[in-house]
Amino acid sequence: MSATRIAVLGCGRIGRVHADSVAINERAELAWVFDPVEAAAKDVGGRYGAAWTTDVDRIFGDDLVDAVIVASPTPTHIDLLTRAVRAGKTVLCEKPIDLDIARVDACRGDLGDLVERVMLGFNRRFDPSFAEVRARVGDGEIGALEQLTIISRDPAPPPAEYVAVSGGLFRDMMIHDLDLARFFLGEIESVSALGANLVSDDIRAAGDVDGAVVALRGVGGQLATITNSRRCAYGYDQRLEAFGALGALDVANQRATSVSFSGVDRTGAAGRVHDFFLDRYTPAYRAELDAFITMTRTGEPASPGFEDGRAALLLADAAAESLRTDEVVRLAT
Amino acid sequence: MSATRIAVLGCGRIGRVHADSVAINERAELAWVFDPVEAAAKDVGGRYGAAWTTDVDRIFGDDLVDAVIVASPTPTHIDLLTRAVRAGKTVLCEKPIDLDIARVDACRGDLGDLVERVMLGFNRRFDPSFAEVRARVGDGEIGALEQLTIISRDPAPPPAEYVAVSGGLFRDMMIHDLDLARFFLGEIESVSALGANLVSDDIRAAGDVDGAVVALRGVGGQLATITNSRRCAYGYDQRLEAFGALGALDVANQRATSVSFSGVDRTGAAGRVHDFFLDRYTPAYRAELDAFITMTRTGEPASPGFEDGRAALLLADAAAESLRTDEVVRLAT
Amino acid sequence: MSATRIAVLGCGRIGRVHADSVAINERAELAWVFDPVEAAAKDVGGRYGAAWTTDVDRIFGDDLVDAVIVASPTPTHIDLLTRAVRAGKTVLCEKPIDLDIARVDACRGDLGDLVERVMLGFNRRFDPSFAEVRARVGDGEIGALEQLTIISRDPAPPPAEYVAVSGGLFRDMMIHDLDLARFFLGEIESVSALGANLVSDDIRAAGDVDGAVVALRGVGGQLATITNSRRCAYGYDQRLEAFGALGALDVANQRATSVSFSGVDRTGAAGRVHDFFLDRYTPAYRAELDAFITMTRTGEPASPGFEDGRAALLLADAAAESLRTDEVVRLAT
Amino acid sequence: MSATRIAVLGCGRIGRVHADSVAINERAELAWVFDPVEAAAKDVGGRYGAAWTTDVDRIFGDDLVDAVIVASPTPTHIDLLTRAVRAGKTVLCEKPIDLDIARVDACRGDLGDLVERVMLGFNRRFDPSFAEVRARVGDGEIGALEQLTIISRDPAPPPAEYVAVSGGLFRDMMIHDLDLARFFLGEIESVSALGANLVSDDIRAAGDVDGAVVALRGVGGQLATITNSRRCAYGYDQRLEAFGALGALDVANQRATSVSFSGVDRTGAAGRVHDFFLDRYTPAYRAELDAFITMTRTGEPASPGFEDGRAALLLADAAAESLRTDEVVRLAT
Repeated sequence: MSATRIAVLGCGRIGRVHADSVAINERAELAWVFDPVEAAAKDVGGRYGAAWTTDVDRIFGDDLVDAVIVASPTPTHIDLLTRAVRAGKTVLCEKPIDLDIARVDACRGDLGDLVERVMLGFNRRFDPSFAEVRARVGDGEIGALEQLTIISRDPAPPPAEYVAVSGGLFRDMMIHDLDLARFFLGEIESVSALGANLVSDDIRAAGDVDGAVVALRGVGGQLATITNSRRCAYGYDQRLEAFGALGALDVANQRATSVSFSGVDRTGAAGRVHDFFLDRYTPAYRAELDAFITMTRTGEPASPGFEDGRAALLLADAAAESLRTDEVVRLAT
Repeated sequence: MSATRIAVLGCGRIGRVHADSVAINERAELAWVFDPVEAAAKDVGGRYGAAWTTDVDRIFGDDLVDAVIVASPTPTHIDLLTRAVRAGKTVLCEKPIDLDIARVDACRGDLGDLVERVMLGFNRRFDPSFAEVRARVGDGEIGALEQLTIISRDPAPPPAEYVAVSGGLFRDMMIHDLDLARFFLGEIESVSALGANLVSDDIRAAGDVDGAVVALRGVGGQLATITNSRRCAYGYDQRLEAFGALGALDVANQRATSVSFSGVDRTGAAGRVHDFFLDRYTPAYRAELDAFITMTRTGEPASPGFEDGRAALLLADAAAESLRTDEVVRLAT
Repeated sequence: MSATRIAVLGCGRIGRVHADSVAINERAELAWVFDPVEAAAKDVGGRYGAAWTTDVDRIFGDDLVDAVIVASPTPTHIDLLTRAVRAGKTVLCEKPIDLDIARVDACRGDLGDLVERVMLGFNRRFDPSFAEVRARVGDGEIGALEQLTIISRDPAPPPAEYVAVSGGLFRDMMIHDLDLARFFLGEIESVSALGANLVSDDIRAAGDVDGAVVALRGVGGQLATITNSRRCAYGYDQRLEAFGALGALDVANQRATSVSFSGVDRTGAAGRVHDFFLDRYTPAYRAELDAFITMTRTGEPASPGFEDGRAALLLADAAAESLRTDEVVRLAT
Repeated sequence: MSATRIAVLGCGRIGRVHADSVAINERAELAWVFDPVEAAAKDVGGRYGAAWTTDVDRIFGDDLVDAVIVASPTPTHIDLLTRAVRAGKTVLCEKPIDLDIARVDACRGDLGDLVERVMLGFNRRFDPSFAEVRARVGDGEIGALEQLTIISRDPAPPPAEYVAVSGGLFRDMMIHDLDLARFFLGEIESVSALGANLVSDDIRAAGDVDGAVVALRGVGGQLATITNSRRCAYGYDQRLEAFGALGALDVANQRATSVSFSGVDRTGAAGRVHDFFLDRYTPAYRAELDAFITMTRTGEPASPGFEDGRAALLLADAAAESLRTDEVVRLAT
């Protein structure tokens, strides 16, 4: 079969991650890269031998392009994904669809069934460890799932200018964990959030929190907690425990080597956990792309799809509302 | 120094635990055991060579008795501890002081400074692992404490008749975890609870939940989550993680041996974690008794004391209220 | 059933360990303690409320004594155990029976069937973890046992005066591991040893080694290695791996608490492993005594018995010969 | 700098591993592939867009080729590496140089200083975990190295036809571990080996062993054990412990995910360890190639080099001799 021809829109950090995945995927060809900044587009295009442009319409107009990865700044997502699907491409859109649920809903009404051509970049669903646990839960290995514990902490807070446009911890960072909660529990019924400002004055100044715990209840009565922090001394802390009637499945942190030290004052001391999201999630991005190529080729509805992106945003909004109102927020389900 | 003479009131399961601790403690002597059921009192007294009685006044009237451990049913706690401290004894009272905060407050007003002679049986504070983490947090090893994660699951639900008089999951089971949260965070400002009924029809019928997650915020802005379940397939799940600016300290589950198996379909498989609270917490009961003896001898205020028992009950009540009202409950602090 | 009346001969460190085990065993009574040094005998006897004497014949002449634990210096073992069994007592004899195989053989000829009344103090066979692995190997969980890896390191070298009379690393320290090897593999066919002097000048001056690795082959063709060191920075290193056709069973080191630390430069760092043989093996001594009491009551042959003590000494001698001759030593089997 | 142009000689399994590493290395270009079987050469060449040939002289005659990787059958190694270095190429030669030490020595005499242009394919030296431990030992983190424990077990025995030409377990399989021992200990003084036939009738019929333990002593008095088996139920078992005066550094087995399961009859059960040498050692092959490219560019002597290949073969021969003679073999040092 001929390679699936893919264009990457946006040549920043995450765009480069996707370009790299496409370049080494045997079923894909990196056809185009786009960035409004010529130097960025040229650099990434040159690196992988792909055509580059600062005019995205050239990509939408190229009938040989099968699929588009939207890795541009969040405010451009809806415009780009809309034009891409209307041009007959499938879309892999980085999260979030948009920070404003009203715009998301408008887009949804606008696109109708075409939303099924939009896959959302919730890469953690494709992490080999999380995916294995999800599959084993699905196979009934721990019986009915009853409790889910997610711990997710960044190594260090983002720059102040990023915080300002991020949409806040819930929409920017926790949205991944909220999607994971939905991945395991299905629809969520109740959300309760507490926040903290213990890490960064910049974040406080921006009116955001830098730590949070959120409690969730699924429509099946299952419970979940999510713990987030914008700083973690020992690296990028990414753990999950699924607990059920017959036992539990855990995802532990991961490290670059399997070395440990024992000496006078400690034993079994391993090194730092992965410090950087790419060290931890490169295999997830690879697997995500595989799923996107398959979806592009088969025409099946995207999963995770536009609806998953919308639902995670609703949860993030509910968490923010709970933080503001001191109430447990019940979602319409 | 002569042995501290101790009486144990109540010869049920927990009374026997205390009698056993006293019997093997080199600084203590088991002077009396009391139970209204003669056979129980006689059995425990006989086992340890202690005097036994069904008339508790004989103990309060015995000037040679230095200290009293109240291990009787919860509704009798206030009466017995009040009479004991008035009789000049120190008291180690099993949790909770009472299920009704109004009665606790009345007792508190009644006793005045004498409450300082009452130690509360929050044994987990004395568990070698939890105590080590608390001490190391106090020494600043992880910097400022920012987040606390407690997971506490019983192997199996209690009998229906126990559930009926237990006061509910928050006052009966989570109260230990709420006290641990205070042990680490100090005073608590906000409480939010979600509950579940996934384990036991008996518990549902009793109007109680059999699983819960609670989110807490301390007055210093620190966050905590507590996850409870009345059933755990792999044993008595008792874990804690204290996370701070400089790192984290974890308490893992414990097992009877350090054996693991690796074979065709799994590697590093250890056995069940301790199945029973005594297998897990016997060293904690021993250390708790040591602290009680020391407090009896020195006359210093008890720690954890009556106020800690009251504060934990207030948190349990707040959790129950949050569950009922769907609100984040703010405590007067 | 009335308690088994036990006398402890020798009130040094290991004698006190046994006296303590007897004192808290519900099936036993500490009837006598003996030591040629009156102060030692009096101290231990007084501590446990047992009769004490500097005249061991009073013990052998006491018909109420059922059993004797020989915990005196090695050169006295044969004399005491011989007189004890002739006096109708069962004997639990600390290892080794003697440092001289000729004397052991003479004793064996002398006692005939009475050797079955002598249990050898290879306490590690009763360690809950080692015993569990042995039982699971026996149950076929790893199929046919093929390879055994034993690592055994002391925290620090013994005093020079002890080294001088110890019989050397193989007879004094490795004899425990050689017995463990027999416990798992049965009879041993070949022994090969390499030694080192990297730890202690005193040990070198005494003509002994302070580190050694020994390779063994069992008559069934199974292979084993034993690694010993007289010094270990992180505590008392006691590990074992049994490897077979279907997998492996491992015994890991053990610690006082289940706490671990993660920070900027390390993760999952636990504390030191047990530093002292008693912290590690107290449960083993308790279980050993239980087996000794049962053997005393039932009259069944001791296990591990005199023959096991002799066989382990033969292996230690073979290891020493291999070290001296640079040959793989084959044992008569 | 322009890419280092590399030819891969041999298009079997290991040749493809190297071709893959070259293809994705940014500093390298896969210039040629050679195999006497046209289909193999064509397949691998085509896959990576490299020139292919069945006439190796075309490669030696191509002045644009900087470096050659010898991944052909062992009997061809000496001929190919000799011609390659005489043609001015650097060489990365798969282990062993040859199975016959006499031929190795003849080659060495023949090449003189040119041997410094030959790097030996002891890939484990480049494994991130082993390399980290070696570096930390070099930095003095565990003080003077005293004991080394290597466990290395294959998932399943090789085919009978491979066994027949393999040179035996010591030269074929353990040679990697013997090189690791030299990597850590430096020169080896004594070797003692025990062997077993518990796994495969084919291997026994070929006159080889399918399990072995080897004890080594370095010239500095350090001790090491190597345990090998041709079968391991739980995967490709690759572990190492370096023990010194100040502590130990361990390399644990590695797995595809960080998932573990806890249920009614086990806790903390992870999945199989990597099953296949490529899953375990792909990063090692990548890093090995990096070192080879650097050595090619700088002209520095290869490390590990020809002498390391020869020394490991001498150790393998010594182990075989020890097995045959039941003697501890002392090496000339």
